[in-house]
Amino acid sequence: MKFNIALLAGDGIGPEVIEQAVKVSDAVAKKFGHEITWKPALTGAAAIDAVGEPYPDETHDICMASDAVLFGAIGHPRFDNDPSAKVRPEQGLLKMRKKLGLFANVRPTFTFPSLLDKSPLKQERIEGTDLVFLRELTGGIYFGEKGRRDEGETAFDNCVYTRAEVQRLAKKGFELAMTRTKKLCCVDKANVLETSRLWRETVQAMEKDYPEVEVSYEFVDAVAMRLVQWPNSYDVLITENLFGDILTDEASVISGSMGLMPSASMGTDIALFEPIHGSYPQATGLNIANPMATILSAAMMFETAFNLPEEGKAIRDAINKALTEGIVTEDLADGGKAYGTKEVGDWLVSNI
Amino acid sequence: MKFNIALLAGDGIGPEVIEQAVKVSDAVAKKFGHEITWKPALTGAAAIDAVGEPYPDETHDICMASDAVLFGAIGHPRFDNDPSAKVRPEQGLLKMRKKLGLFANVRPTFTFPSLLDKSPLKQERIEGTDLVFLRELTGGIYFGEKGRRDEGETAFDNCVYTRAEVQRLAKKGFELAMTRTKKLCCVDKANVLETSRLWRETVQAMEKDYPEVEVSYEFVDAVAMRLVQWPNSYDVLITENLFGDILTDEASVISGSMGLMPSASMGTDIALFEPIHGSYPQATGLNIANPMATILSAAMMFETAFNLPEEGKAIRDAINKALTEGIVTEDLADGGKAYGTKEVGDWLVSNI
Ligand SMILES: CC(C)[C@H](C(=O)O)[C@@H](O)C(=O)O
Ligand SMILES: CC(C)[C@H](C(=O)O)[C@@H](O)C(=O)O
Repeated sequence: MKFNIALLAGDGIGPEVIEQAVKVSDAVAKKFGHEITWKPALTGAAAIDAVGEPYPDETHDICMASDAVLFGAIGHPRFDNDPSAKVRPEQGLLKMRKKLGLFANVRPTFTFPSLLDKSPLKQERIEGTDLVFLRELTGGIYFGEKGRRDEGETAFDNCVYTRAEVQRLAKKGFELAMTRTKKLCCVDKANVLETSRLWRETVQAMEKDYPEVEVSYEFVDAVAMRLVQWPNSYDVLITENLFGDILTDEASVISGSMGLMPSASMGTDIALFEPIHGSYPQATGLNIANPMATILSAAMMFETAFNLPEEGKAIRDAINKALTEGIVTEDLADGGKAYGTKEVGDWLVSNI
Repeated sequence: MKFNIALLAGDGIGPEVIEQAVKVSDAVAKKFGHEITWKPALTGAAAIDAVGEPYPDETHDICMASDAVLFGAIGHPRFDNDPSAKVRPEQGLLKMRKKLGLFANVRPTFTFPSLLDKSPLKQERIEGTDLVFLRELTGGIYFGEKGRRDEGETAFDNCVYTRAEVQRLAKKGFELAMTRTKKLCCVDKANVLETSRLWRETVQAMEKDYPEVEVSYEFVDAVAMRLVQWPNSYDVLITENLFGDILTDEASVISGSMGLMPSASMGTDIALFEPIHGSYPQATGLNIANPMATILSAAMMFETAFNLPEEGKAIRDAINKALTEGIVTEDLADGGKAYGTKEVGDWLVSNI
C-alpha cells in the first residue's frame, strides 16, 4: 500500500523523536512492502517564528491531503509565563483539533512488566492496568464563548455540548469496549452540571444498542480518586474535554511509563498520532529524549488509521525487546547504560 | 467561653460520627472550662424526608445564629442513579454553601507516620506530605447559568468569576502560606480559559503584598500528575471550584488516611467543619464507621473558628495516641482488633 503521512515535528524534542518514528515506520513499510511519502509541515513555536501563526493554512492543507498525521510536540518556554501572549503554540493545537475535526482523543494507559517499579504507585495496585480514555476533544469549555465583562473585572467561559457530539464520542467508546472487556465507564459531574446530565442521559439511551457492554456512571471526583487507588479496575472510560484533560494526565503517571505512552486523535476524515509527553525544552538537541512514545504512536497509526495490525505488532515487539534488553534512554536506564535517542531508533530499525 | 454550635448530622453514617465528635468536643470543653450548646438541625435526605427540602430555612437560621457549624455527611443511594430527581441532597449542599457564604474550602492532606503503608503510593513518595488546598466554593461553573437550548438537544453551563471573588480566596491562600513554608501554588488552566487568566493575573497582582511568599502557577493537568508523583513538593494550593473538587479528592487518597481527613469551609460570618468522606450508606447503623475525620474536623473548629489551639491540640494528641495504640475502626485495623465507632469515641473522651 501507499501512504501520505503529514509530519508535524513541532518544537523542543519534537523533531528528534519524530525522526526516530520516521525511521522505524520506514523500516516497517519496507518489511511489509508499503511505501510512505512523508509530508513535513510547520506547527507550534516553529510555525510562529516562520510565518507568525502556530497552525498555518498550508499545514492544514497538507494534513487534509494526507492519510494520517504524525505529530511530535509543541510548546516553547518563551510563551510559558505569558498566558496573555497574543499568539501561543497552544492556540495552534486547539485550532488544529477543531479544523481537522479530531473529536476523539484515545489515550491508552498500560503497564510494561519490566517497568512496574517506575510507578509512584505500589506494584500490587497497578499490576494488570490496561485502560483507555476516550476524551472528547473539539467541544466543551475549550471551545465555548469566553471573554470579559464589567471592564475586565468579570471573566466567563461557556461549556456547551450537543447530544450529537456526545453520541459520536460515546459510539466510539461502546465500539472500543466491544473489542475489549466490554466495560465502559462514563465520567461526568451529573450532580452539578447540565452538560453532564446531557452526557449521562445520552449514554444511557445508547445502552440498548450495545446490550453486552456493562456501563457504569461515575463522578469525575470519584474517578480522580479511584484512578490512584485501583487503576486496574477500569477498562474504557469516556468523558468530556476538560475532565479528560485532567484525568488522562493523572492516569499517565500511574504506570510509571509516561515516556512510552502514545495517543491518537480521531476525526471523521483523518486521524492524528502523537506521544502524550510535551516538548521538553530542556532536553532539546541533547539526544537524550525517549523516542518510544512517538514510535508507539506510529504503531497505533498502522493499526488504527491503516488497519494494519501486523505492522503495529512488529513495532510493539521491537519495543518490548528493547525494554527487556535495556536498550533505553536515560529516563529508563536506572543506573545502567543509557542509549541516545538516535541509538534507540537505530536499534529498533535493525530489529524490525 | 460559651459557644453555640449548629449540628448538622445529615445522612448515612453522619449521625454516628457526629455523635462521637460531640462527645469529644464536650470533653475538651469541660477540660478547658468552656460551655457548648449544640443546636441540631436537618439537612440532606433526612431533611427532604421531613420537610421536602434538603437545606430548610429553619436550618439556615440555626446556622446563622451559631458560632460555627459541625457537619456530618449527606447523600442517600435512592437519589444516586437519578441525577434528574427534582430535589437532591446535593442541592442542599450547594444552597447551604451559597447562603452561608462559605467561599473557601480548606482541605489539608497530611500523613500519619503509623499509617504510611495504607497509601496506594510508595512510602518514599509520600513521606512528609503536608499540603493544604484552598478551594473556591461559591462560584465558577457550579453556580453559573445552566440549562438547555434547541429543545433539549444542547446543554450549557457557564463558568463565571469576578476579580473580587478571586481576591478574597487568594488572600486566604497568601495568609495561610505565611503561617507555613511560604510556598503558594495557583492552579489554573490559563492556557485555555479566560476565567483562569483572570485568576492568574489577580494572584500575580497580589504577589507584591506578600513579598516573602514564593508563588508558582501550574496548569490543572500538570498538578493532577505531580500530586501523584511528588505530593510532598506542594504546600498551599489555591484553585477554583471545579478544579478543587477534582484535585482535593485525588489528594485525599494519597496519604492513605482518607478516613482521617477533616475540612473547613470558611465564610465571612461563619465557618463549617466536616469530614471529607461521604455518607457511606452501606455502613449506616453498624457502628463500624471511622469517626476520626469528624473528630479532627472538630479540632479544626476549635483552632480556626474559636482560635483555641490548645483545645485543638488536645484532640489531635488523643487521636495520635489512639492510632499508635491501635484503638481504631476496622478500616484501619489491618487484621488486628477493630473497635466500634462508639468505642473509639469513648476511648478518646477518656483520653482527653
Ligand atoms: C496544551 C493544552 C491546550 C492541551 C489541552 O489542554 O488540551 C494539553 O494539555 C493536552 O492535553 O493536549
Ligand atoms: C456532592 C457534590 C455536589 C460536592 C461538590 O462537587 O462540591 C462534593 O463532591 C464535594 O466535593 O463536596
